[in-house]
Amino acid sequence: MKACNRAIIARMESPVPLIPQLGAHLVAAGGKRLRPLLTLAASRLCGYQSTPENQRHVGLAACVEFIHTATLLHDDVVDESNLRRGLASANAVFGNKASVLVGDFLFARSFQLMTADGSLKVMAILSDASATIAEGEVLQMVTQNDLSTPVERYLEVIHGKTAALFAAACRVGAVVADRPEAEEVALDRFGTNLGMAFQLVDDALDYAADQQILGKTVGDDMREGKITLPVLAAYEAGSPEDRAFWERVIEKGEQTDADLSHALGLIEKTGAIATTIARARVYAAEAVEALSIFPDSELRRLMAETVQYTVDRAR
Amino acid sequence: MKACNRAIIARMESPVPLIPQLGAHLVAAGGKRLRPLLTLAASRLCGYQSTPENQRHVGLAACVEFIHTATLLHDDVVDESNLRRGLASANAVFGNKASVLVGDFLFARSFQLMTADGSLKVMAILSDASATIAEGEVLQMVTQNDLSTPVERYLEVIHGKTAALFAAACRVGAVVADRPEAEEVALDRFGTNLGMAFQLVDDALDYAADQQILGKTVGDDMREGKITLPVLAAYEAGSPEDRAFWERVIEKGEQTDADLSHALGLIEKTGAIATTIARARVYAAEAVEALSIFPDSELRRLMAETVQYTVDRAR
Repeated sequence: MKACNRAIIARMESPVPLIPQLGAHLVAAGGKRLRPLLTLAASRLCGYQSTPENQRHVGLAACVEFIHTATLLHDDVVDESNLRRGLASANAVFGNKASVLVGDFLFARSFQLMTADGSLKVMAILSDASATIAEGEVLQMVTQNDLSTPVERYLEVIHGKTAALFAAACRVGAVVADRPEAEEVALDRFGTNLGMAFQLVDDALDYAADQQILGKTVGDDMREGKITLPVLAAYEAGSPEDRAFWERVIEKGEQTDADLSHALGLIEKTGAIATTIARARVYAAEAVEALSIFPDSELRRLMAETVQYTVDRAR
Repeated sequence: MKACNRAIIARMESPVPLIPQLGAHLVAAGGKRLRPLLTLAASRLCGYQSTPENQRHVGLAACVEFIHTATLLHDDVVDESNLRRGLASANAVFGNKASVLVGDFLFARSFQLMTADGSLKVMAILSDASATIAEGEVLQMVTQNDLSTPVERYLEVIHGKTAALFAAACRVGAVVADRPEAEEVALDRFGTNLGMAFQLVDDALDYAADQQILGKTVGDDMREGKITLPVLAAYEAGSPEDRAFWERVIEKGEQTDADLSHALGLIEKTGAIATTIARARVYAAEAVEALSIFPDSELRRLMAETVQYTVDRAR
């Protein structure tokens, strides 16, 4: 991870000083670096031999983080967010214009990193994932404020916006290790299911956790009229009066200061968090199961524990 | 070009309907398709043999147009433009969020098209160009409202935002034809210089042409406080009173309805358009000169005429 962080900082360089400046803000904001970690872990699980000359996994891990960071920058513009991981978001500090353009730069840089890697297979995986992410983001925008969104549509959204990159991050790990197709597929399945579980829990936390734990304001999704499973479940299980409440705050976007605590009460009453976490557990189990084709090892156990931790952080 | 237009429409497809809808708006808005045309022309100049099986030039021409369209979508968001080629811009019709996200999709799709082409050399050229474009856009943003911007900085901006993609569009034409490095370099030089001339003239037209010719409102650049050569030249050659005028409208962004016609008067008085066009002619001559390593042909003459037309449209 140290080599990966170094690669991220080094590849953020540009003769245009604002780019590394904004990059430094993002690097300082930290984040879990979960996606590049998945690339490194997957490559090692597949027996990739890292040597001073052989550092493809590091370059690709950085590449994955660049794609992720580019989408975060654009997300914050689209969502008009002022906080990211508990700190001022880049658009709040540098403006929307800078966030759009530096996002484009990071996206282009990620493609330079793929090109430098030189594997057509890797490029196909990561460019396909990039297109799927954008489709997921557009679909999320289209379903915004719409309580008639079917759960399946919501699952498509989180598959696109989150699980596709988790899957690609894992899969390229198998590709650099030059392993049989079955291992690629298994790691893709691991990443997809981990990503689904991760996003479900994230969406649950937006109606449950306090700001310290989550690093962002609770109720952001509600304020944006975002359609997530907790809302769909609470709406589905709600009384006519409850449903009228959700229609007002989510569909019409008419919200008062008292609405968040009322919403949290309805979410609690209808067991919507439990419904969401239960579904996350199904994906988590599938992710762990996907690892079973690999021989037991400390790393495999660690990866399974990561899945568990992803779900358990909701408690 | 028909095959290229078909490829553009076909590759705009997505299971998320808003994407082809917004795509159709962009295709209907038309535009000159100058960049994909350059790829097709360059490949033919290099003797590329197009057959029903061999259509790499078409895929890459579409790819180049996707990169361009993605940057246009993001530009209009960043510039808060409501018109593009005389029609309502995509952000005005579909909103800024859709423009940011569909721009990301088109950008990702362009990388899928490169990957499908399969040449690492092509990928390096186009991913490098994409990064350079983003750097140029950031640099343009940073110089906005700043009349102390040196002309050299302005030239860097237009090299990044325009000439880099012109150069890449031409260069990949030579690559698909599998021609010696010298022809690649010549076409890169042709594209770079044509792109510089094109943008200089575009910037001149923003202070000269009427809306019908240009397909956009005259004075857009002034309203945005954009630093272009006509402004730098008029500022440089202006009286103390003139300079105070430019400082108010460009640096402070304080503009009244009467300011545009006063600005056009100052531009006229100082010969700033002629200064700009004269510089465009130098680049245009260099572009034509770059073609001289190719044997004389009707196509080569046509390409040289295109350069001439690019400059002459300013009259």
